[in-house]
Amino acid sequence: MEKAQILKSIYRTPLALLTDLYEITMAYGYWKNGLAQRKAVFQLFFRKKPFGGSYAVCAGVEFALDYIRNFQFCQEDLDYLAGLKSPADTPLFERAFLDYLRDFKITLDVDAMQEGSLVFPYEPIIRVQGPIIEAQIMESALLNIINFQTLIATKASRISYACRGDQLIEFGLRRAQGIDGAISASRASFIGGCDASSNVIAGKLFDIPVMGTHAHSWVMTFNDESDSFRTFAHTLPHNCIFLIDTYDTISGVKNAIKVAKELKKEKIQVIGVRLDSGDLNKLSQKVRILLDEAGFEEVKIMATNELNEQIIWDLKNQGAKIDIWASGTHLVTAKDQPALDGVYKLSAIDDGKGNWSYRLKISDQMIKTTNPGISQVRRYFNDAGYVADMLYDVHLGLPKSPSIIEHVDSNHELFVDEKWDYEDLLKPMLRSGKNVYTHPSLNKMRNRTVSSLQKLDSSHRRFLNPQPFFAGIEKRLYEKKLNMIEEIRQK
Amino acid sequence: MEKAQILKSIYRTPLALLTDLYEITMAYGYWKNGLAQRKAVFQLFFRKKPFGGSYAVCAGVEFALDYIRNFQFCQEDLDYLAGLKSPADTPLFERAFLDYLRDFKITLDVDAMQEGSLVFPYEPIIRVQGPIIEAQIMESALLNIINFQTLIATKASRISYACRGDQLIEFGLRRAQGIDGAISASRASFIGGCDASSNVIAGKLFDIPVMGTHAHSWVMTFNDESDSFRTFAHTLPHNCIFLIDTYDTISGVKNAIKVAKELKKEKIQVIGVRLDSGDLNKLSQKVRILLDEAGFEEVKIMATNELNEQIIWDLKNQGAKIDIWASGTHLVTAKDQPALDGVYKLSAIDDGKGNWSYRLKISDQMIKTTNPGISQVRRYFNDAGYVADMLYDVHLGLPKSPSIIEHVDSNHELFVDEKWDYEDLLKPMLRSGKNVYTHPSLNKMRNRTVSSLQKLDSSHRRFLNPQPFFAGIEKRLYEKKLNMIEEIRQK
Repeated sequence: MEKAQILKSIYRTPLALLTDLYEITMAYGYWKNGLAQRKAVFQLFFRKKPFGGSYAVCAGVEFALDYIRNFQFCQEDLDYLAGLKSPADTPLFERAFLDYLRDFKITLDVDAMQEGSLVFPYEPIIRVQGPIIEAQIMESALLNIINFQTLIATKASRISYACRGDQLIEFGLRRAQGIDGAISASRASFIGGCDASSNVIAGKLFDIPVMGTHAHSWVMTFNDESDSFRTFAHTLPHNCIFLIDTYDTISGVKNAIKVAKELKKEKIQVIGVRLDSGDLNKLSQKVRILLDEAGFEEVKIMATNELNEQIIWDLKNQGAKIDIWASGTHLVTAKDQPALDGVYKLSAIDDGKGNWSYRLKISDQMIKTTNPGISQVRRYFNDAGYVADMLYDVHLGLPKSPSIIEHVDSNHELFVDEKWDYEDLLKPMLRSGKNVYTHPSLNKMRNRTVSSLQKLDSSHRRFLNPQPFFAGIEKRLYEKKLNMIEEIRQK
Repeated sequence: MEKAQILKSIYRTPLALLTDLYEITMAYGYWKNGLAQRKAVFQLFFRKKPFGGSYAVCAGVEFALDYIRNFQFCQEDLDYLAGLKSPADTPLFERAFLDYLRDFKITLDVDAMQEGSLVFPYEPIIRVQGPIIEAQIMESALLNIINFQTLIATKASRISYACRGDQLIEFGLRRAQGIDGAISASRASFIGGCDASSNVIAGKLFDIPVMGTHAHSWVMTFNDESDSFRTFAHTLPHNCIFLIDTYDTISGVKNAIKVAKELKKEKIQVIGVRLDSGDLNKLSQKVRILLDEAGFEEVKIMATNELNEQIIWDLKNQGAKIDIWASGTHLVTAKDQPALDGVYKLSAIDDGKGNWSYRLKISDQMIKTTNPGISQVRRYFNDAGYVADMLYDVHLGLPKSPSIIEHVDSNHELFVDEKWDYEDLLKPMLRSGKNVYTHPSLNKMRNRTVSSLQKLDSSHRRFLNPQPFFAGIEKRLYEKKLNMIEEIRQK
C-alpha cells in the first residue's frame, strides 16, 4: 500500500474492532437468541447545542459511510475475539458465533445529512435501518467519527464568523488529539469555513490549501534576526511572511522593515509579518503604523496565539489591525467544549411479525429522552432564509391540513405556511449496504456550509445569547411520543 | 498488510508529511543556505501544569520514537510537494531540494523520559540532537504525539487517584477526537492507571484488558426489561452486568433482582448493575440497600455518566456505594484542559566551528522564555519519596560542592543533600537514528506510573491547591540563562 494512503484508508479498511466491547457482546446476544436479523432503526443525533450557540455543522459523513461499507471481520480480529475470556476464565464467545462473524456482510440502508448542512439538537444526522445486529455494531465508530468532525466544523464556522471576511488558517496539528485528531480536524475545519491548513498531509489527502510561515527556531539559528529574515526571503521570495516576536515584536518589525526595503530593490515583495505573543491589539496597531510609515501599506499582519472566536471578535471590535488569523489549539480540540454529546439510539424495531414497534428511552434526566420512529428532517425556508425545521415520522406521515411543529423547549407551536419552500435533509446514501450517493468535493461541502449559514438569521449566529432556531417535532409524532412516555411511566 | 495492523503501523510508517508546512519551508531554507547539516539541539517540554495539578505523566514516547526512526519521504509525498505553488504561482520548492528529500535519512540522537515517569514544567520529555534539518522537521509530529498522550495519561492518573483503589475503566471511544484520538487515548489511559478499556481495537493492539456491559438499545429491543436481563444473562452467564436505567433506575434494579434470583437457581451469578443517569450518590445507596436486602451483597454497582476526578472524589466523600467507575468523555478528551501546551524549542546550535552556541527564546510573555543548552533532568529522592528535580546542562556540568537548585516560581534555592539518591531521567533512545532502547510492555509503563506516584507526596496530588513540586534549574545553568536574557535585551 502506498505509504501516505494508509491514513486515508483507515476509513476504507475493515476495522470491525474499532468498537466498544459491548457492541460485540450485544451482537452475540442477538445472534444467540435468534434476533440478529430483526429489522431495527437507529438514529444518531446530539442533544446539547455546542459552544452555547444555536446550531452545528454536519461533517464526517463520508468517512462514516466508508466505515460502514467496508465493515468486516478479518481472521486476526476473530483470533483476538476467540482469546477473550470471561471473569470465570471461560471463552467469552462461542466458536460458532465467530464463524458467523467471518461471513458478516453489511446490508444496511443509511440516510444521512450532507456534510456542510446545518443541524440542530435531536435531528438525526444519520439514520441506519436494517438487521439489528448490523445496525447496533456500527454505534461506537459512527459516533466517534461524526461527533468529532461535526464538533470541529461547527467550531471552525464560529471562528470564521468572528473573522468577518478575513482569511482564517487552521494551525492545530501539534496540539491535536492524536494523528487522526489532527487530520480529520483539518478536514472538518475546512468544511466549517477555514481557508487553509498548516497540516501538509491533510492538504495532500483532501486537497486543502496549505500555508505556513517559519518558526522561532529559524530566527534563533542565525546570530542576527535581520539575517534570518533576509535568508528566508531569498529562499522563498514569493512566500515571505516574517515571524517578528522571537525577541521583541517592535524591534522585530523594525528588522523586518529594514530587510523589506533591501528586498524591494531586488523586486522581492514581503507578504506579511506574524505576531505570536503579547497584546495583539496594541502590537498590531503599532506594527501597522510602522509598516505604513515605511511605505509598506500592502504588507499584511497575521496573528496567532491561542485565538478563538471570542478573542478574534473582541480584537476586531478593539480595532486590531490584523488581516490573517490562524487558530490552532482552540479550533482543533474545540477547547471550550471538546466533545459533542452525540448518541445513537434505537427508535424502532420489527415486532417479529413485520410491523414496526416504535421505541424510546426515557430517563431520570429529561434531556436523555429520545424520539421514537423513523425520522426525516424537513427544513422550511423562504426568500429571507431558513424559517423552521420539522422532525417528522416517515410512516406517520403528514396531515393534509398545515403541519404543526411543536417546539419542546419554548412550548410554542408553529403552523407551517404553504408558501414556504422546503427540503428533506436526510438523503439516501446506502441501500442494502451499497453506495447510492456521490459525496461532493470538500470544496463543495465547504460551500454548502457558507451558503447555509447565510440563510441563518444573524440572531442565531451571535456568540452572546443567540436566539434558538425553531427546530421542533411534527404534532402527530409529538403526541405519539407523549403517549409512549405515559405508557412506560404507567408500567 | 494485515488489516488491523494498519492502525498500529501509522506510527511505523513513513509519514513525512504529517507536519506543518513551515517545517518543510524551513528545511528548504536550511538546505538552500548550506545550514542543513549544522548540529542543533531541540527540547520538547510543556509550560503549564495540566488540570491545575502539580505534575504530568509522560506517555507517547514509544510512538514518537517509531515516528522518527521510520521517517522518510515517499515518491507520492515528493510529487505532492512538487505541485505546491507560491502565491505568485511559481513552484514553492525547487526540484533539487525534492531530490535531496528523496534520500533523506535520519541520523539523530534522541534522549527521552520513560513512559510512566512523572514530569514537571520545563523539563524536556524528549531531547533531539543532530543536523538541524532533521531535528527541525520532527517538531509537529512529536508535539502531536507527546502532547496528547501525556495529557491523557495525566488525566487518567488523576481520575484513578479519585477512585481510591476502585476499578476504573476507560469508556471514551464514541466521544474521542477521531479514531486515533480514541486508540492512543486508550493506550495513554492505561499507562496513567486505568484498569481496562471498552475499546476493542486498543485491547487488541496494545494488550489492554477490555470490558463492557450492554446498551439501552439491548433493553429496548425487548418488550420487557426483565426479559432483556434474562436473555443477556443466558448469553453471557459469566459476564453479567445489567444496565438498569433505561426506564427508571429503581424499577430497573427491582427487575434485575427478580432475574438474579431466578439465575441463582441456575447457578448463574450476576456480577453487577450499572447506573448511567440521575443522582449517582442517592441512587447507588438505594440500589445497594435493595441488593443487600435481597441477599445480593456481592453484586457490584458500576457507574457511568460524565464522570471526572472531581465528581468521583465528591461521590466517594458523600458515601456513594459505587464499586466500579467508568470515565469516557472527560478522560479521553481531557475535557477541562484538552491540550497540553508542549513546545519544541531550539536550545543550542553548532556555531559552524564545532562549538555549541546556546540559544533561548525570550518573549513579551515571560512564560514563553525557554531554557538554553543541552539539558538533563536529575530527580532526587530519599526513603520518603521524591525530594526535588534539577534541570542541569550536560556540558556545563555540576560543581564539586553541593549543587544548588533555583526554583524560579518561588524564588527559593535548594542545596542538594549528598545523602539523597538520584536518577537522570533522560535515557538514550536513539543514536545516529538507530534504536538503543527497548520499550517495556504497556503493563510495565503503567507500573512505573503507579510506583512513581507513590513516591510523590500527597500534598502534590490533591486536587485543590496542590503544593508545587520543587523542580528547578541548577545554579550555573540558571545564571547563564539570566546572562543570556540580559544580552538579548541589551541588543
